[in-house]
Amino acid sequence: MSDQIKYVLSEDDIPRTWYNFAADLPFMAPMLSPVTGEPVGLDGLRLSMPDGLAEQELSTEPEFEIPETVRQLYRQWRPTPLFRARRLEQTLGTPARIYFKYEGTAPTGSFKPNTAIAQAYYNKLAGKRVLIAETGAGQWGSAIAFAAPLFGLSARVFMVRVSYEQKPYRRLLMETYGAECLPSPTTTTEAGRAALEERPDHPGSLAIAKAEALQVAYADPDYGYTRGSALNSICAHQTVIGQEAIAQMALAEDYPDIVIGCAGGGSNLAGLTFPFLREQLRGGKRVRTIAVEPTACPTLTRGRIAYDHSDSARMTSLVRMHTLGHKFVPPPVHAGGLRAHNIAPLVSRAVEDGMMEAVARPQVACFEAGVMFARTEGILPAPESTHAICVAVEEARRCAQDGESRAILFGLTGHGNFDLSAYEAYFAGRLPDDAVDDEALAFGFDSIPDLSAA
Amino acid sequence: MSDQIKYVLSEDDIPRTWYNFAADLPFMAPMLSPVTGEPVGLDGLRLSMPDGLAEQELSTEPEFEIPETVRQLYRQWRPTPLFRARRLEQTLGTPARIYFKYEGTAPTGSFKPNTAIAQAYYNKLAGKRVLIAETGAGQWGSAIAFAAPLFGLSARVFMVRVSYEQKPYRRLLMETYGAECLPSPTTTTEAGRAALEERPDHPGSLAIAKAEALQVAYADPDYGYTRGSALNSICAHQTVIGQEAIAQMALAEDYPDIVIGCAGGGSNLAGLTFPFLREQLRGGKRVRTIAVEPTACPTLTRGRIAYDHSDSARMTSLVRMHTLGHKFVPPPVHAGGLRAHNIAPLVSRAVEDGMMEAVARPQVACFEAGVMFARTEGILPAPESTHAICVAVEEARRCAQDGESRAILFGLTGHGNFDLSAYEAYFAGRLPDDAVDDEALAFGFDSIPDLSAA
Repeated sequence: MSDQIKYVLSEDDIPRTWYNFAADLPFMAPMLSPVTGEPVGLDGLRLSMPDGLAEQELSTEPEFEIPETVRQLYRQWRPTPLFRARRLEQTLGTPARIYFKYEGTAPTGSFKPNTAIAQAYYNKLAGKRVLIAETGAGQWGSAIAFAAPLFGLSARVFMVRVSYEQKPYRRLLMETYGAECLPSPTTTTEAGRAALEERPDHPGSLAIAKAEALQVAYADPDYGYTRGSALNSICAHQTVIGQEAIAQMALAEDYPDIVIGCAGGGSNLAGLTFPFLREQLRGGKRVRTIAVEPTACPTLTRGRIAYDHSDSARMTSLVRMHTLGHKFVPPPVHAGGLRAHNIAPLVSRAVEDGMMEAVARPQVACFEAGVMFARTEGILPAPESTHAICVAVEEARRCAQDGESRAILFGLTGHGNFDLSAYEAYFAGRLPDDAVDDEALAFGFDSIPDLSAA
Repeated sequence: MSDQIKYVLSEDDIPRTWYNFAADLPFMAPMLSPVTGEPVGLDGLRLSMPDGLAEQELSTEPEFEIPETVRQLYRQWRPTPLFRARRLEQTLGTPARIYFKYEGTAPTGSFKPNTAIAQAYYNKLAGKRVLIAETGAGQWGSAIAFAAPLFGLSARVFMVRVSYEQKPYRRLLMETYGAECLPSPTTTTEAGRAALEERPDHPGSLAIAKAEALQVAYADPDYGYTRGSALNSICAHQTVIGQEAIAQMALAEDYPDIVIGCAGGGSNLAGLTFPFLREQLRGGKRVRTIAVEPTACPTLTRGRIAYDHSDSARMTSLVRMHTLGHKFVPPPVHAGGLRAHNIAPLVSRAVEDGMMEAVARPQVACFEAGVMFARTEGILPAPESTHAICVAVEEARRCAQDGESRAILFGLTGHGNFDLSAYEAYFAGRLPDDAVDDEALAFGFDSIPDLSAA
């Protein structure tokens, strides 16, 4: 085994293809139109996404070639490093070998640009002039704000008003990149005006911001709507993470027994784990893959597998997946990227088929693990990433109990430079209780459409 | 010439020695004791720094071996990447080849850990248990907070109270790393108590914070005082930047005509430029090196070359260097790292001897260049770094006018993730005027000691 602490690949080792996990699943339930209830084909998808992405979305090809332009832009920060967390191991007194794949060296500090650049590319090819996105905490918005000018495109981001006002730094980052960032609900769309009519001081919601973004994109062919997670194509774009990690584990002369990622919309988790699952499907070593979600939003651990919309306005296709219901509202939790009521259908399917485990952890335990990580490994983790750290630490402690040395790999999806107010709340003991009550779950479940009745 | 955009070295290419520019200067004026006025020798230096650093400080050896432990820790983020700014070139329509060396991938987001780790190492060797530092905006404090636990040391940081209260994020970063961060003036030291007696709501100053830190370190041998810039040894530690850049320019099959860095205490500028000056001294190609300081604090462009203290309490040695006087107070400017009244004596000497040019630029022009850089290259620069970008852009435009293709290399010392409020002020047209008036200069100059009268 190697004694390095960092495993670096050359630019030639940036993957040349995105891996499409759908190709290795025997059957995926089709998306259904929110209007007709019929399966959505290429033509339907093309209404809201450029050809290149629509084709990937329905494809069962195992690999999509990464366009040379995209690969060239990846070279600004890819391949990202893979680290051995030796000081964390020592602190835990564990025989485990702990590795982490770090995506925080990307320009906006998280894994999101992997797909933002791809989506900007296909939208540019399709003749779009402005990229549209909705954003909550601002990670997706800033990835789009970063990617758009690289292709000579503008960006317009609908940011949930309460975040726009309370978290100005992500907004400022977007504006510095040249994006137009609007506090949603706005008066520029029907969905926004409706919300403001209902309540003039509306704090906004991701659902409303999404509805505004979609209405703008549907109304004008110059505008291209972009998505931060969940779609098959987006999971594929993120597989550059796992593909690199496999090559880096080989440099480490090691291979993971356990691969852990945090679960929100599912794309970073997919990106890290799917390439390892592919190896396994091809007869490679069996790995345990673990999805970690917050107890505040237990989509995989307490959700139902059903057809549902991914937005509360029911404008998006019906997709079969784990869902808490499109009206589910999680209690406030600082890991803003892990608040989705639903998850990528490919991740959902991996869990349903027993290829992936899913667990939920409370945010205080996650921050505790995150602080231990910062003090030993020197990197401040994003609150989302602390969920993966939390379970990696648990598994490493289990190794200490068993006296067994397992290799544990987790995804460090981004740095926490923009999230220090969450750490402040943690240190002050002010983190809100993130338990979800049965009433909130029941309210969410009630919103899952009953297709049998249709 | 290579057509890459990023030049990456392997970990084996991390320099094995720090370059000591003092070895290549024929005569450096000695430091003088603030008490006796006599030259300070090894024994004097040992009162406030560990042996290893004291020896480097007075050495005229050209190279110091980098301890293996330090080099191992550098591997977390070094070698840092060197980029070709092709999109910036295209936007400017310049035939210039613009390169930048990016230190923002370090854990705390700037070049400071290069020396923080070295200082932690030598303090650990000397048996210290707690690292002490003063900090203004927080960059040095967070570098020490990061470095200390890597050696099993604690850290205590005296942070100027007004920054402590107005800029909580850097403080939170330090606390997350486990450091104790105190708003200075505190009641824990004589210097702090004196300031509070004078004014119970004292906002603090870097000079008071420094006096507090020094008093703690002098009083207890368990405590090791650390310094963020200016010393010969610190300039040497930072030469890993320039040494790597030389190797990376070779990968680019190019060599800079101009090397540009921002000038505060001088250590990042020294770190980038001195290795190129060494090449020149050894008969290599002549390069123009340019120090860029803010007009708010024009140490090199309007300061005097004289013996002065580096702190306003006159506890530190007298050093011959460019100085605005130790009582000089610059007008508020957002590039907090560039507010020093004095500069590293080695940089001062390079300017005095005509080996380096010095220019001053107003902050609005610097932010303008910084925003252009963010929109073309995708990286948000620290306000300090925008000074180097500003002059790089000017030089690139000059190439366009001349029709000449020169190679321009500048130092991007860190990212601006913690500085978005400065960008907010820039966009809102609220950046304070940073012109320094004659009265402020005269007040500063009056504080320069008249050694001839002694």
